[in-house]
Amino acid sequence: MEETIFSKIISKEIPADIVYEDAEVLAFLDISPVTKGHTLVIPKKWSRNVLDIDSESWGHVMEVVRKLAPVIKEGMGADGINIVMNNEPAGNQAVFHSHVHIFPSFEGKKAMNWPEGTTYTDGESKEVAEKIKALIK
Amino acid sequence: MEETIFSKIISKEIPADIVYEDAEVLAFLDISPVTKGHTLVIPKKWSRNVLDIDSESWGHVMEVVRKLAPVIKEGMGADGINIVMNNEPAGNQAVFHSHVHIFPSFEGKKAMNWPEGTTYTDGESKEVAEKIKALIK
Repeated sequence: MEETIFSKIISKEIPADIVYEDAEVLAFLDISPVTKGHTLVIPKKWSRNVLDIDSESWGHVMEVVRKLAPVIKEGMGADGINIVMNNEPAGNQAVFHSHVHIFPSFEGKKAMNWPEGTTYTDGESKEVAEKIKALIK
Repeated sequence: MEETIFSKIISKEIPADIVYEDAEVLAFLDISPVTKGHTLVIPKKWSRNVLDIDSESWGHVMEVVRKLAPVIKEGMGADGINIVMNNEPAGNQAVFHSHVHIFPSFEGKKAMNWPEGTTYTDGESKEVAEKIKALIK
């Protein structure tokens, strides 16, 4: 277990703009929002990120994400919703307590630009798929 | 139900580099990868996106996402993982069949730049939280 600012938000030592709370999950506004209404959904039980979270915590968090997404869209009068989870520093994670971002996006002013990306050489994608498949337990 | 390229991948009319399949869920490589190993996880039962997917389909998809994330990280020798779901065109959604992106990210060459964002004026975030909270059923 790692103490982060999110532990203190869960214990109410630090205030936050809470939008939802139950026994397992807390959802509150990100203080550095991508767009207004940007919400973080976190498990109360600590895990670092998707790489170590247990199935039960993950299920609870994701069910709240599913329920909040349309509500945030409606509340903010948005046209779309992005759901993002960043894992490890290379994946933009800054607070090491699992958290899922939900943020509204708008026609003509999208919240996020889709990354440029890369391409596979001939036959390479088949090899990549085989490599991943072979590691599934 | 909307016929998309993903329906044809599910029915095997169109080939794909499949990494995982069960009765409810299919996972395959994105043909326009953000980074190599970029995988899409979709429910076999059609829904448009997070705004209409049922709890059961969502749970199945997300459990597969949880299981694949560490495997994709390991298989691609990555340092981080991004999980993204784009909903509606304003949220960058291009294929209207629910799908969750998983892509590897690397130290020194992150897959995704975090958007610049915005700020709340004094008291505004409290109002936004109240607005969202009031809409939760």
